[in-house]
Amino acid sequence: MSLLTDLQWRYATKKMNGQAVSQDKVDYILEAASLAPTSSGLQPFEIFVITNKELLQQIHPIAYGQQQVLDASHVLVFASWDKYTEERVNGYFKFLNAERGVPDSATDDYRNRLLGMFGAMSEEDQAAHAAKQAYIAFGVAIAAAAEQKVDATPMEGFVKADLDKLLNLDAKGLKSATILPLGYRDEANDWLVNLKKVRRPKHQFINEIK
Amino acid sequence: MSLLTDLQWRYATKKMNGQAVSQDKVDYILEAASLAPTSSGLQPFEIFVITNKELLQQIHPIAYGQQQVLDASHVLVFASWDKYTEERVNGYFKFLNAERGVPDSATDDYRNRLLGMFGAMSEEDQAAHAAKQAYIAFGVAIAAAAEQKVDATPMEGFVKADLDKLLNLDAKGLKSATILPLGYRDEANDWLVNLKKVRRPKHQFINEIK
Repeated sequence: MSLLTDLQWRYATKKMNGQAVSQDKVDYILEAASLAPTSSGLQPFEIFVITNKELLQQIHPIAYGQQQVLDASHVLVFASWDKYTEERVNGYFKFLNAERGVPDSATDDYRNRLLGMFGAMSEEDQAAHAAKQAYIAFGVAIAAAAEQKVDATPMEGFVKADLDKLLNLDAKGLKSATILPLGYRDEANDWLVNLKKVRRPKHQFINEIK
Repeated sequence: MSLLTDLQWRYATKKMNGQAVSQDKVDYILEAASLAPTSSGLQPFEIFVITNKELLQQIHPIAYGQQQVLDASHVLVFASWDKYTEERVNGYFKFLNAERGVPDSATDDYRNRLLGMFGAMSEEDQAAHAAKQAYIAFGVAIAAAAEQKVDATPMEGFVKADLDKLLNLDAKGLKSATILPLGYRDEANDWLVNLKKVRRPKHQFINEIK
């Protein structure tokens, strides 16, 4: 099997059957998300892995009643940094350099340029920058789920302020970005499963400049 | 090989060796990007596949002199819609319904809700929303490149306004989001290739709520 075959197989599952995804597969998908590239390697987001049924009951209306939140076996919430603080950036480089066995000063020039760049951005732009990094990992996690034949429903339709409050994200300096319920398709009852997967024609989507 | 192995293999290649990536592999990566999920399936972005050496010489300084722009065999530019117009949204659904062989009215309720949602957003927020969709595909393209053992360097460090102007994106209603040079690593001359890949510890990155 190839990634293309996996991507053809996946779809935004509308009805899940309640079957549990194994911890191995969930860990695999989380590891893929962790391995996704991010700007300067900062990984400016965290992932919440929610299986608590009471909490999912509370998320359900926040996600406009989308049923997958209740039928999934695990619901991932990608939440990105609200801003790039010196503490966060310095902490990352300190860890990086320790892991690589080099002096922390090794990255001083780069780190200071980076802090200057973030410092020149509004907090809103910093948050948007961090959210985009979460989206890269979101894409990689979706690909990994498809490879593992785990169904997933990428969700942006939810009230972010309400989810932030419910998960107490403000206190962690995070903002919810996306939701990814994981589970297995209910083939008999999903209206989307047998509809043709449609993508825009290549000539509208790809521009070659030779 | 698994996607995790591929993601461990990949890194943000700093020095490429000039070897050409085959058209088959480039097409594969573009197809993966096209298959990435996007909000309501709109795919609100295009990909520029640039091999023109004169144009790449002009992009090089816009990307702060990053050498991969010149050493890559193909440089992809992901450029997202500057806004969601009725024409774009209606055009997509018309195409979708024709492909699925259903009357165009089949999606009227959904389409009108969507137009209402976008209409209530500022143009800036619409552009940010579209850019995030490009980032999902960017992540998937990076994973596909790794699977194909093609090296890639995810780039956000470039002067967007200058690249938009150079590629005449305004006239197409697009804004540059990211750059992805494709090629092959120059193992002997890449300072990053043998450094340990570091990711934040799981306890800082994953939050389980059981």
